[in-house]
Amino acid sequence: MAAQPPKDMTESTTETRWNRRLEDIANSLRPSLHEWIRRPRRIVEFEPDSDAYFHVRPKTSDHSISSLPSLNWTKNDEFVLDFGIHMVGYLSFVLDFTGANMDAPCRLHLTFGESLFDVTMDMKNVDTWLSTSWLPDETINVDFCPTDVSLPRRYSFRYLRVQVIDVSPKYTVRFLDVLCKCVSSISHDTPVEILKYNDPILDTIDHVSISTLRDCMQMVFEDGPRRDRRLWIGDLRLQALAAYSTFRDYKLVKRCLYLFAAVSRVDGSLPACVFEQPQLSPSTDYIIDYDMLFAPTVHDYMCASNDVQTGHELWQTVQGCLNRALGHVDPETKTFNPGHSDDWKFLDWDQQLDRTAGEHGVLLYCLKAANKLAQLLQKPEPFTELVQMLTASASQFLSDDGVFISGPSSQVSYASAAWLVLSEAFPQQTARTALLKTLAHPDVVKPLTPYLWHHVCDALATVGCYQECIDIMTSYWGKMVQAGADTFWECFHANDAKSSPYGDVRNNSFCHAWSCTPTYLLRGKLRHFVEAKNLGKVTVKQWDEKWIGRTV
Amino acid sequence: MAAQPPKDMTESTTETRWNRRLEDIANSLRPSLHEWIRRPRRIVEFEPDSDAYFHVRPKTSDHSISSLPSLNWTKNDEFVLDFGIHMVGYLSFVLDFTGANMDAPCRLHLTFGESLFDVTMDMKNVDTWLSTSWLPDETINVDFCPTDVSLPRRYSFRYLRVQVIDVSPKYTVRFLDVLCKCVSSISHDTPVEILKYNDPILDTIDHVSISTLRDCMQMVFEDGPRRDRRLWIGDLRLQALAAYSTFRDYKLVKRCLYLFAAVSRVDGSLPACVFEQPQLSPSTDYIIDYDMLFAPTVHDYMCASNDVQTGHELWQTVQGCLNRALGHVDPETKTFNPGHSDDWKFLDWDQQLDRTAGEHGVLLYCLKAANKLAQLLQKPEPFTELVQMLTASASQFLSDDGVFISGPSSQVSYASAAWLVLSEAFPQQTARTALLKTLAHPDVVKPLTPYLWHHVCDALATVGCYQECIDIMTSYWGKMVQAGADTFWECFHANDAKSSPYGDVRNNSFCHAWSCTPTYLLRGKLRHFVEAKNLGKVTVKQWDEKWIGRTV
Repeated sequence: MAAQPPKDMTESTTETRWNRRLEDIANSLRPSLHEWIRRPRRIVEFEPDSDAYFHVRPKTSDHSISSLPSLNWTKNDEFVLDFGIHMVGYLSFVLDFTGANMDAPCRLHLTFGESLFDVTMDMKNVDTWLSTSWLPDETINVDFCPTDVSLPRRYSFRYLRVQVIDVSPKYTVRFLDVLCKCVSSISHDTPVEILKYNDPILDTIDHVSISTLRDCMQMVFEDGPRRDRRLWIGDLRLQALAAYSTFRDYKLVKRCLYLFAAVSRVDGSLPACVFEQPQLSPSTDYIIDYDMLFAPTVHDYMCASNDVQTGHELWQTVQGCLNRALGHVDPETKTFNPGHSDDWKFLDWDQQLDRTAGEHGVLLYCLKAANKLAQLLQKPEPFTELVQMLTASASQFLSDDGVFISGPSSQVSYASAAWLVLSEAFPQQTARTALLKTLAHPDVVKPLTPYLWHHVCDALATVGCYQECIDIMTSYWGKMVQAGADTFWECFHANDAKSSPYGDVRNNSFCHAWSCTPTYLLRGKLRHFVEAKNLGKVTVKQWDEKWIGRTV
Repeated sequence: MAAQPPKDMTESTTETRWNRRLEDIANSLRPSLHEWIRRPRRIVEFEPDSDAYFHVRPKTSDHSISSLPSLNWTKNDEFVLDFGIHMVGYLSFVLDFTGANMDAPCRLHLTFGESLFDVTMDMKNVDTWLSTSWLPDETINVDFCPTDVSLPRRYSFRYLRVQVIDVSPKYTVRFLDVLCKCVSSISHDTPVEILKYNDPILDTIDHVSISTLRDCMQMVFEDGPRRDRRLWIGDLRLQALAAYSTFRDYKLVKRCLYLFAAVSRVDGSLPACVFEQPQLSPSTDYIIDYDMLFAPTVHDYMCASNDVQTGHELWQTVQGCLNRALGHVDPETKTFNPGHSDDWKFLDWDQQLDRTAGEHGVLLYCLKAANKLAQLLQKPEPFTELVQMLTASASQFLSDDGVFISGPSSQVSYASAAWLVLSEAFPQQTARTALLKTLAHPDVVKPLTPYLWHHVCDALATVGCYQECIDIMTSYWGKMVQAGADTFWECFHANDAKSSPYGDVRNNSFCHAWSCTPTYLLRGKLRHFVEAKNLGKVTVKQWDEKWIGRTV
């Protein structure tokens, strides 16, 4: 997720109702970040390749990585290191020189590459409406060598491009002991089950999902460790589901739930995201569907963890997070009315998307989750009648010719279909038929983000369309893998590597939480269909090493 | 000084004869750097001014400096701070933000300005044959605010240009507690005599000389604290003379003499400069006149300090430093023969300069200094006969029409004249007449550097041409003052502010040791002529404050 509401929607600045007690609980759950060292595996060069997704292909340099400490670099030289796998961490190296004296400083330009574009395009003239301060490059100057260079900022990268801007004719520089101190709240010793699927591409998709999840798991579930490094409700919900299926980490989810609960607002609503640094602070971004989705996120957490106490503690927040959406239910049509407020309705990046049916589906989905949570907590279900009403009124979104429609122009979209199916407003057979017919509609509005693609997949799996779900997974996430991804990207267009929701691909994130869900589906609803065999457990470290061996 | 020998001269790589005992003595004399805090005095803006040397004039902004902490800056904003006086030190500030959240990092570009060009031109496309890594700019990225930003590198500057490359639309940044921790081996409490001259411009020239000297006095006498930050013999000699007249600092001179003596070479010669960081190391640069000038530098030191022990300790080095030049004495003509070796003969930057007469003068000057040193040490004078011979043969450089000439084309130059006069090869009246006639010659080759201008001034003062000396001082150094200098520059062309020996003025140094000598002459040979009145002593701190008041 990255924040920019559509132009006609205002930010919500509703006052925060701070709950310091809940904040203290969140703080008590701060993880100790685990650290490990990763060193570059090879020096890479690039050759044009019109068949490759990035139109360029890395190849191992004739200079072996073991020769790096003895390689001398002068003005305008450059090289790219491949660490073999995506990482989040802190770069350090020893810069030394060769020559009688270092008679001028050394100026270096370092670019931390998640994608091949990062290390093959330069970082100049980036035309993006997001801040260019996110660009992953640094210019540093070193006066004396040998010296330990330790960059204080955290980076998210696999490739490191080193450009020697200048030295002097009297000396050259050498790079020794280049390493990344990797960090995650998931340690290298955490066990993960290896599953073997009936199609090798699914093994890889599963692996890349888990790597994505691990690299986003820091002091909170970040949306992307490169950018925006923030905790969003929509991303959190998906990350938590993936984490339950893999690392079985409940504590970080709990912490994140409390962080939101600590900054709920006077009307009960929740900010779309929070900042954890330098101290807890709610964002002014508000997204009505993210607000509602807090309810199923708590419900999922309780189901996974059996932590009843937290369920009770957060029950009031769960009820509150639905208030604002409930105000959008039109008394006449009994359906969600997006025009009721300027609140940002997300579902997907597509500005043309009619969100009436989709938000109706989200609301129904979330009310049901709240009811189920109430059951688990042995409380009366608060939304029984509302659920009945919204279930009945959902029929307005099913057209006479059996496709899901939304809004005054009866727009047909994946978003409406996915959320209406997930809401289980229709009998499964009806939902299944309508879903498949909607997805096949010639004018259907397709998803732009992995976030919506996930909900489409989840909807397909929910109604037993496993093969259709796998087909999307292999054609969408699978194509990212074929393009070279070892973590899943914030956005992906199979035929346009340079596309970006931000105007310039160099500001995209290539390790993004909302893309990590295939592992959740493969290890959950799809598990039997894909004939997943459990090969036993390995540690995350072994898991990483196996991956590096595969790709380098 | 900055090193680039003319193309036809090779670097000397003669083997070093390390003397660790002398190095230990040099190390025992390491100064403790004194520190003090300087804060910006005003925010400045610039307006075009075709009458100003830099074609631009700083003016105080409507934003007072006290308002700085409350000023908010966004993308593409910039401002320039004026600290009121040239400084050498470490910048720090607190970066804070205004806004609900800092939802993206902040990228800043900082440029440390010695000259107005530094902060009004950008630092792109600098076309210089010196390393661009000397350029005084840094790009930094800050993830969270408020944060203490402390730049680890030392800078030499008066102005600080701050450019906000990017923030985000959601926040602005503010700069609090901006300060420079200034450093010098000269403390703020060091007493300096204030002299009042018969012309106010001389008061200023004296002051600027002393500021230049102070800012170059660090762990060694640096040639320039911005660039090259190195100890050169030619610069050291002039700095030491200025220091004897002002701060009366002998210990740092002694340390520097030992640093050279510790790395004399197997043939007795000395490298043109040494590196003190990260550990003592001789440069491969060799300049034959710098080598010789070690002798008078030791002699001057002994005269100023009465440190007989050091004189004895360095006597062997003094004798050795003349060896290589003595090999250049042509057995037939008995004069210095530049063609004898590829050794770099400097005297001035001018590549067209014929150096025969000038180097002859330097050699004779240095041999006499060695003889005088021997006298002080109660040793036999080693070069009596040589001095007689070279004095006699110097007449070859005086033409029939009474000007100093050099080389096969009888080139007339300030360099030849200055050094032949300083060598006292001729009776004073002869020297005086020839000097004035040479300087007035229509085809005379004039100096390019303050280094040679100093020797011309010194020569004039030596033969009693005080007014002519003052005229040069006020027209050369005085014009730098009028152009805004508060330290003297490495090079200066009155009519071309952008001229540079390095191809681009942005790589020039504006605080350079070899330009600090007017104070030495004003307080020495010229003292009575300029009717200098001693107004008593003030501390360096009071001296600085007085200056700041004058210019801001």
